[in-house]
Order: sequence, then C-alpha cells, then structure tokens
Amino acid sequence: MTKRKALDSLEPVAANGLLHRRLFLTGSAAALASAPFLTVQAAPPDVPAWMKTPGLPLRVYGERSPREVGVQRLVGAQPGTTGSGSSRTPIEALEGIITPSSLHFERHHSGVPDIDPDQHRVLLHGLVERPLIFSMDALARYPMVSRIQFLECSGNSGGNNGAEAPQQTAGGIHGLLSCSDWTGVPLAILLEEAGVKPEGKWLLAEGADAAAMSRSVPMAKAMDDAVLAIYQNGERIRPEQGYPVRLFLPGYEGNMNVKWLRRIKVTATPTMTKDETSKYSDLLPSGRALLFTFPMDVKSVITAPSGLQKMQGPGLYQISGVAWSGFGRIRRVEVSADGGKTWGQAALDGPILPKAFTRFRMPWRWNNSPSVLQSRAIDESGAVQPTRTALLAERGTQYRYHYHAIQSWSVAAAGEVSNVYA
Amino acid sequence: MTKRKALDSLEPVAANGLLHRRLFLTGSAAALASAPFLTVQAAPPDVPAWMKTPGLPLRVYGERSPREVGVQRLVGAQPGTTGSGSSRTPIEALEGIITPSSLHFERHHSGVPDIDPDQHRVLLHGLVERPLIFSMDALARYPMVSRIQFLECSGNSGGNNGAEAPQQTAGGIHGLLSCSDWTGVPLAILLEEAGVKPEGKWLLAEGADAAAMSRSVPMAKAMDDAVLAIYQNGERIRPEQGYPVRLFLPGYEGNMNVKWLRRIKVTATPTMTKDETSKYSDLLPSGRALLFTFPMDVKSVITAPSGLQKMQGPGLYQISGVAWSGFGRIRRVEVSADGGKTWGQAALDGPILPKAFTRFRMPWRWNNSPSVLQSRAIDESGAVQPTRTALLAERGTQYRYHYHAIQSWSVAAAGEVSNVYA
Repeated sequence: MTKRKALDSLEPVAANGLLHRRLFLTGSAAALASAPFLTVQAAPPDVPAWMKTPGLPLRVYGERSPREVGVQRLVGAQPGTTGSGSSRTPIEALEGIITPSSLHFERHHSGVPDIDPDQHRVLLHGLVERPLIFSMDALARYPMVSRIQFLECSGNSGGNNGAEAPQQTAGGIHGLLSCSDWTGVPLAILLEEAGVKPEGKWLLAEGADAAAMSRSVPMAKAMDDAVLAIYQNGERIRPEQGYPVRLFLPGYEGNMNVKWLRRIKVTATPTMTKDETSKYSDLLPSGRALLFTFPMDVKSVITAPSGLQKMQGPGLYQISGVAWSGFGRIRRVEVSADGGKTWGQAALDGPILPKAFTRFRMPWRWNNSPSVLQSRAIDESGAVQPTRTALLAERGTQYRYHYHAIQSWSVAAAGEVSNVYA
Repeated sequence: MTKRKALDSLEPVAANGLLHRRLFLTGSAAALASAPFLTVQAAPPDVPAWMKTPGLPLRVYGERSPREVGVQRLVGAQPGTTGSGSSRTPIEALEGIITPSSLHFERHHSGVPDIDPDQHRVLLHGLVERPLIFSMDALARYPMVSRIQFLECSGNSGGNNGAEAPQQTAGGIHGLLSCSDWTGVPLAILLEEAGVKPEGKWLLAEGADAAAMSRSVPMAKAMDDAVLAIYQNGERIRPEQGYPVRLFLPGYEGNMNVKWLRRIKVTATPTMTKDETSKYSDLLPSGRALLFTFPMDVKSVITAPSGLQKMQGPGLYQISGVAWSGFGRIRRVEVSADGGKTWGQAALDGPILPKAFTRFRMPWRWNNSPSVLQSRAIDESGAVQPTRTALLAERGTQYRYHYHAIQSWSVAAAGEVSNVYA
C-alpha cells in the first residue's frame, strides 16, 4: 500500500541537520518520508505481568500514573512568607497546547485563599449608573464564552537577563507560562448592565487574597475581550488560579489577571496601586521608566531538547516547542541548529489561535557535533522575536520584565543540553 | 462610554423566549444588549475571613477546590468483575471544549492495567516488509502531532433507546463522551517505516489489558489521521485512558481507540475478534446486522439546563451545550424551546475544529411556563441530527449503538428539568 523512501531523501532546509517540516505534515501518506529513528529489537516482548490479572477498578476522579509523579511544578517560595512566591510549569515534560490545571504556574502575593463560593461576591461600582453585586449563582446565569489562551507572568524568563546563563530546565527558566481553555462571562456585558459613565476610562480590579492584589485596567481592554473566568479546562477554576472567579485579560501580563476577583471599580484614571508602582514597571537605560506595559510580546521556546536533558545518541530527532504572542496569532516559527546563522521553517500544529500556545515541530538529524538550537517566532502583527543581544541593547540590564529574547540551547558532543547566551 | 439598551430590545428568534445569539457575539461592545439577569443586593459584602490571614502555600501539583469534589464520574461497574464497566463524564457540570483528564469517561473490559512504561513495547508486524518493536523512549523520538478531538463510546446515550425516558443527569445519559488535546505519533509514519505489503488492507490493534481488547481497523483510516497517543491535555496519557500509549482514531467509536496498545498486526481482512462480533454490531428491523459502523454520527446535547437540574425562577438564562461529529466540523446548531416546532440558531464558540466538541450557547427568557428544550446539530457534510422518532423508525429498538437522536429536556412550571421523549 505504501512505498518506503530512503532516509537520504529527507530534504535539508538549513545547516547542521535541520530537515524539511513536511515530515510533520500528516494527512497525506505520500508526503511522509520513512524515518528509521531507532534500532529494532530482535525478539518480540513476552506477555507482560499486567495482562495476566484483572486491572484496577473504575474511579470517580482519575489521577495520573504514579510513575509520572516526578513531573512537578518548580516551587520558589519567598522566605519568611506564607504562600508567597511562584511555581513554574515543567514545560519540558509537556506536549500539545493545553497545560494540565494541576501544573499551571502560580504567582501569589499572600498565598491561596480558601474561598467559600456561596459567600463570595463580586462588586462592580465606581463611575457607573447602577452599582451591582454578583453572587456566583448570579454570574453563572450570564452569557459566557470559552477560549483557549495563554497566561504568562511578566517576570517570566527574567533569569536570562543576568550575566551568567542559568543552568536550569526549560520550565525553570521559562515556566511562568501556561495555556488553558478558559470560560467566563464577558466583562463588557456586566459593564453594559451597570452603565459606565462617560468619564469612566479605567477600572481597578481587586482580589480577595490577603494581599488584596490590585491592578488598573484600561476600559478599552475591559470592553474588548476581558472575561470573568469561572471555568478552566472544563471544570471550575482551580484555587491557585483564582477560585471561584478571576479576571482574565487575554495576552496581558499575568498579574493583571486578578485572581479571586472581588471588586471592579470604574475610575477616570489609573489607581496607581502598590502592585503597579512597586513592581511591574521597567527602568530603561535612559533613566526613564515604562509603566503599564500590558501585552506580552511575541516569544517562543524549544522544550525538547532543552536544558538539563541529554540526547540519546546521533540520529533523527523531533525538535518541539511552543510559541505565543499577546498581540494575536503566531504567523511563523523558524528554527536554527547553528546558533542563528541559518534558519528553517517549523511545522505548526493547528489550530493556530490568537493569544494562545502554538506548538511547533522540526525534524533534526543530529550527527554528534556540538550545536546551538534556537527558535524565533513571528506574529501576525509582523513582530519578530529579538536576539538577546538586541533586546539588552534596547532595554539595558535593569529592565526586569517582559524578557522575550530568543533562547539558545547548546548541545554538546556527548549530548548534554545547556543554556547559553549565543 | 457605553449606552444601556432596554431588555426589550432583545430580538426573539423562535417561539417561547429564544433570543438572538448576538448576546453572545462579543468583541463589539455595541452589539451587546443589557441583560439584567438578577436582583442586585442592597449592601456591599464585608471583608471576608479569607482576606484577613495569609492563604495556603504553593504546591508542586495542584488539586481542585475541596468544595468541588461532588463533581464526579458516574461509575457503573459490572457485577462480579474487577474493573470492568464504564464511568460517565458529568458533562452537566463542565464548560468549554476540554474535558479534565480526571473526569474523562472510562470503558474497560478487564480493569486498568498498571503498566511500567520502561518495560512496555509496541509490536508492529504482520503483512509488513520489516517488523518493528518500539520502546516508549523510541516512540518519543518520532514526529508527533497535537489535536483537540472528542472520544465517544458507541453505546453512549443508549438509555434513550428504551421505552421509558431515563431520569438522569445529562452525564448519566450522554456522558460516555469527552474531548481532549491528544498528542501522538502518526501511525502512517510507523507503517511507512515498516513497509506495508500490497495485500495489507486492515490491521489488528490489541491492548495490554487482561482482556487483550482487540479491534480491526481499515488501512485507509490508519494512513489518514490515526495516531499512537502518548500525551493527553498536555501531560502523559492517564492510566484509565491507555497509559503509556493508546491508538487514537479521530471520530471513530471509542472502543476502537485501543488503550494500552501493545500490538498492531497488518492483515488482509478484518480479524473478527471477540470484541467486534459479540459487541459493537447493530441489528436492523429487517434482521440484517451492520458490522463496522465506525464513525460517530453528528450529535449535540444541551448540558445546561439539563436533567435533574432546577431553574432559579423566571428570567434570562444561558442555554449551553456541546455538539460534535465524527465526519468533520459542526456547521450549525439550532435550539428549540417549544419541542421542535420553531428553531433559532445558536452562537458557537470558536475555534470550530473537526471531530471535536463545539460549545454552543443560546439566550433564553423563561417565563415560568412548561417548555421542552432541544438542540439539533448539522455538520459540514450536511448531516442533520435526527429526531428520536425518525431514528427509531429507521433502526428499530434492537439497534444498541450509535444512538444520536435529538435530546428533549422538559422544563416544568416549577422549574424541574427532566428527560422526555418529544
């Protein structure tokens, strides 16, 4: 039914072993090239022990295999606090575009409140004609919308701003980053009902945690695609993601997506809360500071192979990673195996959604030689992910947030993968 | 900034309170109508107890709120067996298009094997030029693809075939149904590598459970979009879904998507295994039986409001549900509030993906009168979900699988929702 093609028919598209992405374009068997990735074992396997006895019973709520419990968030708690700090998603162990809710990154300013949804209320007040208070039952009556979208902390990847390249996993460096199917009530509907006064140009969003985490949000964003998210990946939102309700601002830096949302106040100007003056502002080399740098820039990272992993020996590999942009859809991802000298175009798994992860893949024949892998994303606005050198030249080393430069992974001759500045 | 519109400006699109879907078309604030769904409380809430003390610490692997543990799969174990039977997804408690892996439905024929992935092998043999054996490490080297796709048991909704309408939740009736982000190796690539002989037109897929669950799969499907799925919703596939690897055949009836996959044998004809002769064949009124009815038909179900739920009183509601088809994308979903006499078009949340859940929504103003809610899906092939009367007239009452008729939910004057044949 099918005809084998020689391995050598795979077409190189860039230096040092990068092959044409058609290897990943399925749907047409004729387009697939034969790819002997491994040595075949001599003997078929025995009937395993687990086929000789009935298995485990049905369960009301499943768990992952006990053999996978090593896949964990990397917790960094702030000393002397209770529940403050962050935990990072192990993106190097994951695939596809959905982050499991149990592994979604966290960033808390005073821990995770244990909220009774029956008592929780959301207050909408300020420059409105008619202040409103919503119970969770009331919110659940409103029209909702479901969308798959990423969330990224503005401080993500900041370790790469330092003088020495941190030797960590992809998640350790870039794991303040996740993507979920969010369902919620469009904020525009609630604002319409309350009746925003003409002078209402901003709003204050406040969380019900002990830090009363608060940020100012432009009215245009609130009326565009903001939602009060109640569901995450199908089920009610998780406690560490804002149970029972969070503000979700697609593409905007993580901390503005206020968790445990209890209050929205319509204002004429930004409120200048502690959270937006003490943090999340960016000092430029000129001494000027940028405030309110909301959308997250176009970015990508190769998750396999990546930091602290080890290659299994020479041969064909799949390079896999994720790309995203707070400005819309990913248009293209390019991959280099020679530190950025030559580039080939990666295959993208559909659907390519706005402000969501896009999974990219690239076939690579590694010949045991030292190599530097990079990925570079371009979004539909035409923005191109910059090199680290270009980003630092523009922003200096005091710019703490929105680091989105190209990640370079060094592959040593013996197969070890490490973080390098290239 | 915005102008309130009167509730009465909402445009009816069908009888008994169905309103125009533009209420759900966000992105343009001007298109949103004011929707006072609730009575506003008089006093703002006090500062709650959980804001007065630091919250809970960061965790390496999250769990849902303890207040949500009542959302469970409905387990139906077969008496006298260990781990045989099914459990149903509580679709009435979920939103969006992703089913949480912990709530994905199960159907096992001899329980869930506890498989060591380091020992697990997949054998590819039969009518091939070169038999292959894959370890999990070897499989992970191959090109992969990620896709969001539904899985439905061929016996799903079969309870509605009986003489009396079963009084259960939406999940209790239709919950052998889930949708995930699946990532796996295209089977076509492995078959290309093995070299299928010209006479190889089918394959046998066998699981590593104690039942050695086995089904025959046409070669055309294997070469089209079949994958060996290794990841589910980002993480490694769950034990009850086939850890460490399952066959995934997009749109095909659930049992063919063989879990714990250990063997693929290329054959000239179907193998006629016990699992495809004792079950999963359909007796027609003429006495003729249909075998190998693989794709699942176009179908939809309203999940809210649905069976055993209760309305909170008259007023505006969101009708929400899911539609899907094994033949491709959903083109349109229509909703009726008068038992099928008049229909209005529902809003669809994007992306509309082939062989995946599509979430639909419809605004409804309920005036306390007895009503019958229905949804009717149409897919891109033009297939229309049939009425129960039409389906039974064609198939008779002995046809046990592929029940996909329109679901009717009765809403009583006092608000109780129940299953009816309408």
